[in-house]
Order: sequence, then structure tokens, then C-alpha cells
Amino acid sequence: MYYIGIDLGGTNIKAITIDESGTILHEKQTATEAQFGSEHVILKINNIIQEFHTSFDMDVQAVGITVPGVLGENNSVVELMPNFPDQWRGVPLKRKLERLTDLPIYLLNDARAAAYGEKMFGAAQDFLDFIYIAIGTGVGGGIMCNGELLLGSRGVAGEFGHQVVVVDGLKCGCGNKGCLETVASGPAMATAAIRYILQGNPTMMRDLVHHDLNSVTSVIVNEAALQGDIPAMEILENTATHLITAIRNSIALLNPEAIVFGGGVAESKMLLELIKKKLTEEEILFPESLGSVKIIKSKFDYFAGAIGIAAWAKGRFAAYKAN
Amino acid sequence: MYYIGIDLGGTNIKAITIDESGTILHEKQTATEAQFGSEHVILKINNIIQEFHTSFDMDVQAVGITVPGVLGENNSVVELMPNFPDQWRGVPLKRKLERLTDLPIYLLNDARAAAYGEKMFGAAQDFLDFIYIAIGTGVGGGIMCNGELLLGSRGVAGEFGHQVVVVDGLKCGCGNKGCLETVASGPAMATAAIRYILQGNPTMMRDLVHHDLNSVTSVIVNEAALQGDIPAMEILENTATHLITAIRNSIALLNPEAIVFGGGVAESKMLLELIKKKLTEEEILFPESLGSVKIIKSKFDYFAGAIGIAAWAKGRFAAYKAN
Repeated sequence: MYYIGIDLGGTNIKAITIDESGTILHEKQTATEAQFGSEHVILKINNIIQEFHTSFDMDVQAVGITVPGVLGENNSVVELMPNFPDQWRGVPLKRKLERLTDLPIYLLNDARAAAYGEKMFGAAQDFLDFIYIAIGTGVGGGIMCNGELLLGSRGVAGEFGHQVVVVDGLKCGCGNKGCLETVASGPAMATAAIRYILQGNPTMMRDLVHHDLNSVTSVIVNEAALQGDIPAMEILENTATHLITAIRNSIALLNPEAIVFGGGVAESKMLLELIKKKLTEEEILFPESLGSVKIIKSKFDYFAGAIGIAAWAKGRFAAYKAN
Repeated sequence: MYYIGIDLGGTNIKAITIDESGTILHEKQTATEAQFGSEHVILKINNIIQEFHTSFDMDVQAVGITVPGVLGENNSVVELMPNFPDQWRGVPLKRKLERLTDLPIYLLNDARAAAYGEKMFGAAQDFLDFIYIAIGTGVGGGIMCNGELLLGSRGVAGEFGHQVVVVDGLKCGCGNKGCLETVASGPAMATAAIRYILQGNPTMMRDLVHHDLNSVTSVIVNEAALQGDIPAMEILENTATHLITAIRNSIALLNPEAIVFGGGVAESKMLLELIKKKLTEEEILFPESLGSVKIIKSKFDYFAGAIGIAAWAKGRFAAYKAN
């Protein structure tokens, strides 16, 4: 029996199939073409499902689809997709795709799906209580409590990146100010790097992008920091400091065994080492409990959301059948 | 069938018995006499249990005892009791009392117990996801997720008051700096009031305590604020602002239906109204979700911990029997 996982992103749609053991059988990627609107994208998703379902003659049980935003009405209707044109608000995505495909469709926020995937098949299989933090274009999160994904009263629990860490800080895409996402994401790091360069500070980041400011990314910052570039190291330090503020408070609230880092920015070993070091140095509540919090890297990267949502569809479908 | 709930505080031990429906049958209170050490206090607790058990000829099934601090080893051994002499660390309280009483003993942090009590018999019976915040001498908390008390990996989840809200702020009893508890507790409010008075500012708080600074409490602050005293209103405003920072971040993480306020300071209707107002004014992530968060007052006050822990003992004992 097989499950399809589709990770709907602003740029690309990534899709996989898994078997019962979580082994990936097929991978597929296509441009989202979000500019053509929700109906167009829904048809593209349907095409992928049909292709998997028919071309490979697979006994597909259920399909999971991630949404990079907020879902309402028990994870069935799109409420907010900040990086998509507005015609998504109110789209009954679950119902539409169930009609098109005649398969059970399960929707979930992308970072929550990735957290679930790490629990089922990834780096967090041994943990009952952990926080998954995805640092990329934004900062997403998923919280696992006693082995269960925390959904909250409306399914939007786990918004790790929308904790406020800078009072009266920068305006965030969510409407609030000073969210972690505004100071500890890939774009935030790139913006800080560009500011260093424009101010004329000596930094090898300028050379690494051959003076092309459009090429400055968090990868460049990390590369320069690894080579001892002081401004780049400062950017990593600041990023770690802001992350620590939110992590520390989350530990007080949730008492997790581990923090699992995913997303592109978390590829930086140096950043994770800084976080580990700072967490250890901090005088935190109940050192016994804090000392035991493990900082680990996610197992999945590019297909993390797709694997996670396929696992979620598998789990939801099993629960549905059991009732 | 009956259950005993004992709320162990630094000054008093409060005890109650409940029946299956949560109705309180007996109440008892005695001085803790913590200065005589853990063995003395344990014997006092045992005496209370014996008295309920034998004097009233009750069929007691289980006993719950709150601990104002941190428990280890699956809620059985005292790890940290900040307001007690140090000889409590490592005391196997559960085992000792089970030997003395021959009854099942269940321990839990006091605020977590109160949260559970509000869910089972109090103001939060209709909510599956809520945060309970107890504002008194300290700021405690308990988190309910999907109808279950969140314990975390070592049973210390829910430490709402030890979120850091002031960077490099005042030293907290927990060892950290700038915890919510340092700026939004009863003593923090009293300290702020005393500072106003000592600075010679015109404030009716001075008259309300007849110039006796030792009598300044959060109750005095509230009383003055109700009469329009500007310094007192400022103290309430500041308290609300700090609470909002922590509440807002907790909402992003946990997506609760309600925040339930308990503890002496929360008796201030003005403070709760301020919190409601500020939460509504805030431009927060996902207004749909935030708008629905209810701010409510706990049902229980003086015996909140005792009722909660009796309910907890009832629940634990039922789960134990079912297995």
C-alpha cells in the first residue's frame, strides 16, 4: 500500500510516493506557477496524483498535501498563504482534490508535516517530546508532545517563527512586529550581509558574490564565517542569539527532549554549534532538564515536507480506517 | 470513593477531600513549619491523611500532593523547591508517603495541578486546549493540549513564568535573568509600588498602607488603580504588558482556545481587562485564531491546588486501575 506526499511551495511542487515503511519510491518536481491562480495549481496537483496513481499502477491509499501557510476548518480550507496571490483564501482545497482524485486528501502546514516526518521516519524517531524548527525563507515549526503532533485548537500550533523576539522590531509578513522570522531567517541573514557590504566594511562576503549583491544568501554568510570572516560570524552569532531567546522560552513551556533543526539555513553546522554552545552557557531554569535537551539536525532536507505529509496521510488514513 | 488533595505551600498545607463528582467534603489547613525540615513536614502530611482516612471513615482511593517546585524521576522525587530549606532535594516523597500511608500517592507541581483541576471541575471544562497561568508570589503555569495535561519529557512543561521577557533583566529565583516572574508577580508589583512611594511621587498607595511600606501588596496596587491612582495604574499596565509578551508567544506556539488566570494577583479584574484589551489591540499572527482566544478567570482560588491535585490523583488512579 502506498501514499503520496505533495509539498506545495511558492516556487516548486515536490512530490514523492512512499510505501508502508516510509521508503521513497518516486520523486517528482514541477514549477508551481502560482501566478496562474489556485485553479491552475490544483489541476497541476491533480495531474501529479493521476500520474503516480495510474502510470505506476500503484495502490495509493491516501494523499497528503502541505500548505505553506494557515489552514482552517479542521485543516481543510486555506486561510492564509502569505507567499501566494490572494485568491487562495477560502479555497476548500481538501474537498476540491477529493472530488478530482477520488482519494482521501489530508492537508497540513508544511513545517508541521516535516516535524511529523522526522518523528515517523527521520531523525526524531526516538523522541516523544521535541520541537522541530525549519529555518529557510521563513521560520516554521512543529511541536511533538508525548508522541503526538500538537495541532492546537485551530490547527495552527507550532508557529515557532512568530514568537516576538524584538520589541517594536521589523514588520513581519504576519502583520506583527519583531517576530523571530524577521531576524533569524535566510533573507534576514542575507539582508544583514548586504548591509555590511554597503557600509563598506571589509568582508570576504563581497568577494564571494563577486560584488553582485543579488547573490548574497545565508549560504554565502556561512561560507565566509567558516573562513573566519568577522562580519559573517557576527551575523551567525546574532541569528543564534535570537533563536536562543525563542528556544529558551519554548523549553520553559514545553520541556522537550530535543530540538530538531531543518530547512536550508540549518545546513550550517556552525550555526547549530553556536546554538548548542549558547544554550549550554545560559543559566537556564532547571539545569538538570536543560542539560538534557539535544540539538540535532533533521534527517530529511529537500523532500522533508513531502515525506512528512505522506507519513501524515498514512497516519490519518490508518486512524480513519480504525474508527 | 474518595480522594485526598494536599497542597503543600511554603507557609501552609491546605487539604481537602473530594468525591467522584469533585464535590469538596472536608477542608483543612495547617502551618507547614518548613523550618523543621522535610521529615517533619512529611509527618504532618501523613497526619492529615490519617485524620481524613480514619476520623471520617472514608474509603480513600488515592492521595495527591502538590509540590511548589520541580519534581524528577517521573514525578516521584523532589528536585527543586526554591522556597523551602535545601534538605528537600532528592527526597523520594512519593515512596516515603506510600510507605507511611499504604495509599497510592501522586505528586505534581502546584500550578499544573490547578490547571488540571480547572479542566476537570472548574472554569475550563469546555476547553481542550488552554493555558493556565497562576500569578501570585511567583508565576506558575499548566498547559492543556487536546484535553491532556502537558508534562513534557521530564514533567516540567508549563513553566510559563520562566519565559524571559526582559533581556538582561533582574535575577530570578530560578537562576536565569528577566523571567516573567521577576516583573509580573505579586512581589514585583509591590516592589514597583514601594519604589514609587520612596521616590516621593504623589500616590494614594502611600495612604492606603498608612505609610507602612511592609503592607504594600498587589492588592493595594489594585485598590489604588481602581480609584484612578496614576502610579498604580502604570504598575498594572506594565504588568499586563509583560504578561502579554509571554501570552502572545505562547499563543503562537500552542494555539489555545483560552487563557485561564488563577492566583491572588489574577483577582484583579482591572488587570484581566487590561490584558483582554491589549490582546485585542495587538496586531497578532492570524487574527482569526487570536480573536477567538478567551481570557477567563479560574473557578477555584484558595483551594485551587488541593482540588486540582485531588482530581489528578483520581485520574491517575483510574488510569492505573484500567491497566
